[in-house]
Amino acid sequence: MPARLIDALATTAPLAELFSDRSVLQAMLEFEAALAQAEAKAGVIPRPAAKVIADAARAGGFDISALAYDTFRAGTPGIPISKALAEAVRKADKSAASFVHWGATSQDVADTALALLLKRALPILRKDLARIEGALQMLSEDHKNTVMLGRTLLQPAPPITLGLKAAGWFAGVRRGREALEAAFADALVIQFGGASGTLASLGKYGPAVARALAEELGLQPAVPWHTQRDRLARLVCSCGVLVGTLGKLARDISLLMQNEVAEAEEPGGAGRGGSSTMPHKRNPIACSLTLAAAARAPGQVAAFLAAMIQEHERGVGGWQSEWPIVASVVQATGVAAESMAEVAEGLSVDAKRMLANLEATQGAVFAERAAMLLASRIGRPAAHQLIEKAARESARSGRHLAEVLAKLPEVTKHLPPAMLRDLELPERYLGSAEEFRAAQLLPAKNRKRRK
Amino acid sequence: MPARLIDALATTAPLAELFSDRSVLQAMLEFEAALAQAEAKAGVIPRPAAKVIADAARAGGFDISALAYDTFRAGTPGIPISKALAEAVRKADKSAASFVHWGATSQDVADTALALLLKRALPILRKDLARIEGALQMLSEDHKNTVMLGRTLLQPAPPITLGLKAAGWFAGVRRGREALEAAFADALVIQFGGASGTLASLGKYGPAVARALAEELGLQPAVPWHTQRDRLARLVCSCGVLVGTLGKLARDISLLMQNEVAEAEEPGGAGRGGSSTMPHKRNPIACSLTLAAAARAPGQVAAFLAAMIQEHERGVGGWQSEWPIVASVVQATGVAAESMAEVAEGLSVDAKRMLANLEATQGAVFAERAAMLLASRIGRPAAHQLIEKAARESARSGRHLAEVLAKLPEVTKHLPPAMLRDLELPERYLGSAEEFRAAQLLPAKNRKRRK
Amino acid sequence: MPARLIDALATTAPLAELFSDRSVLQAMLEFEAALAQAEAKAGVIPRPAAKVIADAARAGGFDISALAYDTFRAGTPGIPISKALAEAVRKADKSAASFVHWGATSQDVADTALALLLKRALPILRKDLARIEGALQMLSEDHKNTVMLGRTLLQPAPPITLGLKAAGWFAGVRRGREALEAAFADALVIQFGGASGTLASLGKYGPAVARALAEELGLQPAVPWHTQRDRLARLVCSCGVLVGTLGKLARDISLLMQNEVAEAEEPGGAGRGGSSTMPHKRNPIACSLTLAAAARAPGQVAAFLAAMIQEHERGVGGWQSEWPIVASVVQATGVAAESMAEVAEGLSVDAKRMLANLEATQGAVFAERAAMLLASRIGRPAAHQLIEKAARESARSGRHLAEVLAKLPEVTKHLPPAMLRDLELPERYLGSAEEFRAAQLLPAKNRKRRK
Amino acid sequence: MPARLIDALATTAPLAELFSDRSVLQAMLEFEAALAQAEAKAGVIPRPAAKVIADAARAGGFDISALAYDTFRAGTPGIPISKALAEAVRKADKSAASFVHWGATSQDVADTALALLLKRALPILRKDLARIEGALQMLSEDHKNTVMLGRTLLQPAPPITLGLKAAGWFAGVRRGREALEAAFADALVIQFGGASGTLASLGKYGPAVARALAEELGLQPAVPWHTQRDRLARLVCSCGVLVGTLGKLARDISLLMQNEVAEAEEPGGAGRGGSSTMPHKRNPIACSLTLAAAARAPGQVAAFLAAMIQEHERGVGGWQSEWPIVASVVQATGVAAESMAEVAEGLSVDAKRMLANLEATQGAVFAERAAMLLASRIGRPAAHQLIEKAARESARSGRHLAEVLAKLPEVTKHLPPAMLRDLELPERYLGSAEEFRAAQLLPAKNRKRRK
Repeated sequence: MPARLIDALATTAPLAELFSDRSVLQAMLEFEAALAQAEAKAGVIPRPAAKVIADAARAGGFDISALAYDTFRAGTPGIPISKALAEAVRKADKSAASFVHWGATSQDVADTALALLLKRALPILRKDLARIEGALQMLSEDHKNTVMLGRTLLQPAPPITLGLKAAGWFAGVRRGREALEAAFADALVIQFGGASGTLASLGKYGPAVARALAEELGLQPAVPWHTQRDRLARLVCSCGVLVGTLGKLARDISLLMQNEVAEAEEPGGAGRGGSSTMPHKRNPIACSLTLAAAARAPGQVAAFLAAMIQEHERGVGGWQSEWPIVASVVQATGVAAESMAEVAEGLSVDAKRMLANLEATQGAVFAERAAMLLASRIGRPAAHQLIEKAARESARSGRHLAEVLAKLPEVTKHLPPAMLRDLELPERYLGSAEEFRAAQLLPAKNRKRRK
Repeated sequence: MPARLIDALATTAPLAELFSDRSVLQAMLEFEAALAQAEAKAGVIPRPAAKVIADAARAGGFDISALAYDTFRAGTPGIPISKALAEAVRKADKSAASFVHWGATSQDVADTALALLLKRALPILRKDLARIEGALQMLSEDHKNTVMLGRTLLQPAPPITLGLKAAGWFAGVRRGREALEAAFADALVIQFGGASGTLASLGKYGPAVARALAEELGLQPAVPWHTQRDRLARLVCSCGVLVGTLGKLARDISLLMQNEVAEAEEPGGAGRGGSSTMPHKRNPIACSLTLAAAARAPGQVAAFLAAMIQEHERGVGGWQSEWPIVASVVQATGVAAESMAEVAEGLSVDAKRMLANLEATQGAVFAERAAMLLASRIGRPAAHQLIEKAARESARSGRHLAEVLAKLPEVTKHLPPAMLRDLELPERYLGSAEEFRAAQLLPAKNRKRRK
Repeated sequence: MPARLIDALATTAPLAELFSDRSVLQAMLEFEAALAQAEAKAGVIPRPAAKVIADAARAGGFDISALAYDTFRAGTPGIPISKALAEAVRKADKSAASFVHWGATSQDVADTALALLLKRALPILRKDLARIEGALQMLSEDHKNTVMLGRTLLQPAPPITLGLKAAGWFAGVRRGREALEAAFADALVIQFGGASGTLASLGKYGPAVARALAEELGLQPAVPWHTQRDRLARLVCSCGVLVGTLGKLARDISLLMQNEVAEAEEPGGAGRGGSSTMPHKRNPIACSLTLAAAARAPGQVAAFLAAMIQEHERGVGGWQSEWPIVASVVQATGVAAESMAEVAEGLSVDAKRMLANLEATQGAVFAERAAMLLASRIGRPAAHQLIEKAARESARSGRHLAEVLAKLPEVTKHLPPAMLRDLELPERYLGSAEEFRAAQLLPAKNRKRRK
Repeated sequence: MPARLIDALATTAPLAELFSDRSVLQAMLEFEAALAQAEAKAGVIPRPAAKVIADAARAGGFDISALAYDTFRAGTPGIPISKALAEAVRKADKSAASFVHWGATSQDVADTALALLLKRALPILRKDLARIEGALQMLSEDHKNTVMLGRTLLQPAPPITLGLKAAGWFAGVRRGREALEAAFADALVIQFGGASGTLASLGKYGPAVARALAEELGLQPAVPWHTQRDRLARLVCSCGVLVGTLGKLARDISLLMQNEVAEAEEPGGAGRGGSSTMPHKRNPIACSLTLAAAARAPGQVAAFLAAMIQEHERGVGGWQSEWPIVASVVQATGVAAESMAEVAEGLSVDAKRMLANLEATQGAVFAERAAMLLASRIGRPAAHQLIEKAARESARSGRHLAEVLAKLPEVTKHLPPAMLRDLELPERYLGSAEEFRAAQLLPAKNRKRRK
């Protein structure tokens, strides 16, 4: 089940499948089947009726076009789907039909079905996130000594290692994935409250049916939450934050891929970014899809939050807005995760070019270092004046800053030659890069617990 | 072509059809056909080749699933679709295949196809907006003398007429529709710039081909705008504003429909909000779909605006995010327009209940009036003190404020009995309601031009 | 320090003070003082210099206007503030001036100062949230038996208790507050990385200085996170979700306050919503400020998420956008919390009116119940037909549904008189309301842990 | 009046002044003064009273702190300010005090004051936008022949001219400024409706007073629009779109400023981006402030649109949210406009480096051209195969693509040497660049009218 053309860039194959008509309808029917079975178990409806209902729900054969249209008219999918199921049941057993959807409200169907879909989305996301974490961890280890320019405001800054940069990417993704897992775990609950959230029509059997229903569906039980949408909101937010983190990674890679920078490149892969006319070039396609997801996700999060203001026991508008928002934010997360998994696993790195770009700054990125060395000896104002003069000369002459400084008596009086030579060696100005890198890769159990 | 279940509440039948795979693909093929014909006309490619290309484009038979997948891999629909077309052409005429997509870039296809889709969306929106305007205008005329409570912060305020209220709704929708028409007119342009926006591969023929292409497609010509998205942004904003205006209308109606207020009711209609168990009740389904659209649209607008920051001659991420945003904001507009057209045309009004709700305030909403009458005679502080005392007594005793005031000598000394009796007549305290109502219904030609 | 007029409705006094110039500047100076002391402790700078720096930072006397202007020019507050501090230090001890801001980058100052401000915001928010939780818990207990209409899509639904409704409000706020506390705990970390995030200029002393700095400031240590903004993003999201939950509460209260509903009322309080001319009326002012916060917060969250795409080692635009966003989302949370604390603690409830509104539906909200009772005996279609007929007659005649049903032989044949009389008693149709209510009030330790 | 530290990066000096307490309060007092005078003119209140009121309004001396606090309590600035003014008037003339704010509602003050502030914002924005348009036009003319790389998805593409690029920037800004001017013109209207929007307390004098009030204030008259916020929404959207366009410009410049690209540089200017330690380096500070504005604005627009759903005759929440949103979106526009004016006027361009970066692609960007030349002779598949082979060889050998092609007999058989030599000349592959450039600079009067 591929995506539709209109949003082909906004989803992945497994998530397009997950939110397909077939799969969405099936989740709603699963609710109805599980409800009947839970009610039979609790003695609320006859066991044979439950069986007929469950069989009909599994049999399928519903007219999805008609259901979609009726959903629009009814303002909720729950009404037409339970009607259609009752119709199907009636054909098999007239008396059983009365027990379809027994005691439930249409929001119970829709919210629980959404929880089922989200439960199935989680492993899809998790798999790609694990690929990213694994690949970035390895990248970080492999390049712990690969020196490259730091870049601040897109301008050259003192050197870092690619290992440190990758560790920062990794740590952001890991934190985001952990938060996402927690938010999903929290939100994967049933919705079951009946017309007003009291399960009134089930008399005293409500809680027992609810427990059985949750067990049947593999979701957690929960007190009805028809208009308390905070768990879903946190899930949506966790997606939004993770997409932001992946977007930052994609931005970095796409910048490193610029022809003038050329320090890294996302893999070509089938149908990807390769150009038949420019065979040595690759477009950052996976990065662009991730950045597209990151452009869309914040607005989706905002829409969900705005829709939280739901009236009394069922909202008028807020609730009805949620499905497409949740589906698209999860799909944005999926497309970013799948894309960056491909990028992280297949990234090519040009360590030589990294060094070359660093050297092309002629030591300008060490001016801070030189200034600090001097400042502790001759005070900051004098030091800055000297370095400024030297930097200008370096830029004018094309010579390395260290070389220029080595010619200035005001400098050599204070700084020994070895110290000046050091200024040409980026690996001598990495500070705590390796310590910071390693700390971010520590397995979760070694990190201080967040709570 | 009905909507998919996942977004069945978020679109209408004609707009779901408009953004269906078939229709989206067709728009892209139309571009390719028109391009070939324009290029043949300008002498850039052979006329027979153009004919073969146009025929193949019209013939259809493409594997949409494969195209959707390839679109995801390529990061753009233009590449796979022009390839598939070239393949189809090759079967008919090998030499013609080389001229498919001649000189165009993949963004040319996608942007122009989007403009074609938007052109087709306009009459769909316009039709429902005209229904709303017509119905609200009539409602306003019919109820120019129907007195009802004004309500501020959801609390009772001095009376208005339903005619004035409807005129306000009407004027907002009319302004919004006019702005939307202007924004669409502005944005319905071709995109045609080739790889870098210079049409370099067409040599000197670029502008001629562009003009012919625009004419062929019924769009306006335009200098390439690959990364200048402001026209589309204004179109998206105009949708967002109009949805907000329709959302305000839906909120008002849904509030008037509350059982405790019961002043108006949206029509039932087929499959709509009627409840078989509560036959005299109607859920505000159309209003809820409109409010759902209004919950989603602002985030979509934000997403589009955020995506405007597109790099150099083609963006990495921003552009790739646009299609689903534009499609969903247009569909939000459509669902709000269609829903509120149904509501506006079928609204039932209970004028008696309006009066009853007004009277239930026991004149409290005229306290301001009484206070002002007294203030001009005895000063504001003394007036307020008197009215406060009277209002308290009215609340305590259940008598109308005017009645209470008529018993206070401090009042009767200053206000003649007729003036006090007037306080019980809401129609005597409507100020400029009718003038303001009528002014908002004036035909556009009588209004001052906005520029 | 009151708010400015332009955003007087968007903040509270303590939060306006927290984000005032004085307080913001002080937080940045605290960073500089603590940094000097931490570096002296680690032997990086001379102890006397550190003392002079800390003294000058505490002394104040800076020209805030000039600093604000220079911040705009420099694109960051860190540069002008460290310069101004160095200037002040120079007056006391020329040599010490060189050690101001030693090894830090301007983002270190700004991010750590923000963490300090957020640390101080937390108890402000926590206090009001505790008031809300306490008051709602008490409200729920007090009204565990207060029956009122359930309302779905703003239409009457089977009864609930105010106790259950309040428990839902409470549970949402508690979950939101717990999530907010966790997100704050996670984000209250120092930022300290120097120019490129390696603390290169501190040589091997970086981590020791960082630890001492964190301790000095009472924040958690952290590896530099200049462009990994996910922790702050989660904090911002947690605010957004909580504001949504409070907005839902405010919407419910403002709806209950409508004159036609009149079931509850927010307290008047000093300067609040009371009208001198309509003394028995109260405007939902606190609710309106909360709903205003809920209208603004989602866009602020979206802005933060969009700004997460920060380039390489320091972003160009994303980072620079954050301060006003974070400040305004925290203030939105504060205004909503303070407002709803006032509302929750002072809410007046009219239980009689609740019952009256319920009874005004003439049993229509029990139609579901009657239908289900009949359906299990005569099948759903026949049951619905009967109930529909009865409901129509009830609406027509103004008699209670139960009364009408008691006259229909098709009904009395199946349902005994006692069962029909029950239909007039809302307290007999509350299902699991009390169980669901109590479950939501359980102390945290009795609830299943979220992880 | 400089900005506050918390949002020092988010405003400019004149706009910080415009939204300062003093200026906001003054605008509200201007409303009250003009109202009194208009009412005196219409014979509604005594002329001497109006004079006293206007004098007191002009005299100032109000306690802004107290007003801010009372505004928070009252939920609107109108109530405390009219009270404070009445108090001041009372001291001069007790009887005149009763006529302060006569017939107006608090939203009338606030909305009209906002319109006055926006009217004053317009020339501030207009001035900087004119600077941008002027500078970009000149840049485009000066560099009509300056060849540079086109860049798509941040990868090299066929050449363009800087003149064309600048013309695209210019045209986007001009369209955005024109739309902004139209939206402001439309929204600069008075608000004057009294308690319910009927001006009931003015009897028949409402419209006359409204006209006089509008004239007095230099705003357009308008029927009360208390809950129809579409005009303001369009103004806010026009700001959002323009900020997006300026953000795109800032993104482009900041990318061109990268050390590895080095084709352009924003000016240093006082306090701007210059680094004392790296004197030949400049940080893109103005671009970063613009991009920060572009990160914030979309969320602000979304917040305004979400707040449009305002209930009945005065909203509960929506309206109360607007002031900070409007103020911050206007300030975002101002900071982007002022910043990019500085950038556009002071941009340095390195045309040599542009050429060098182009040449560094070794003709890869002409592969498309070569392929098209060959395709029309030997068919597309064969042509692509050939070019692919040549491109690979060019990449391997470091020789220009044209040079490689000139050695391939399969190529030289079809393409004459002159044509191949052309492939090394970017200026021969500019297509319609100049025509497209010039078209975008045409004065407005020569362009087709949009309507």
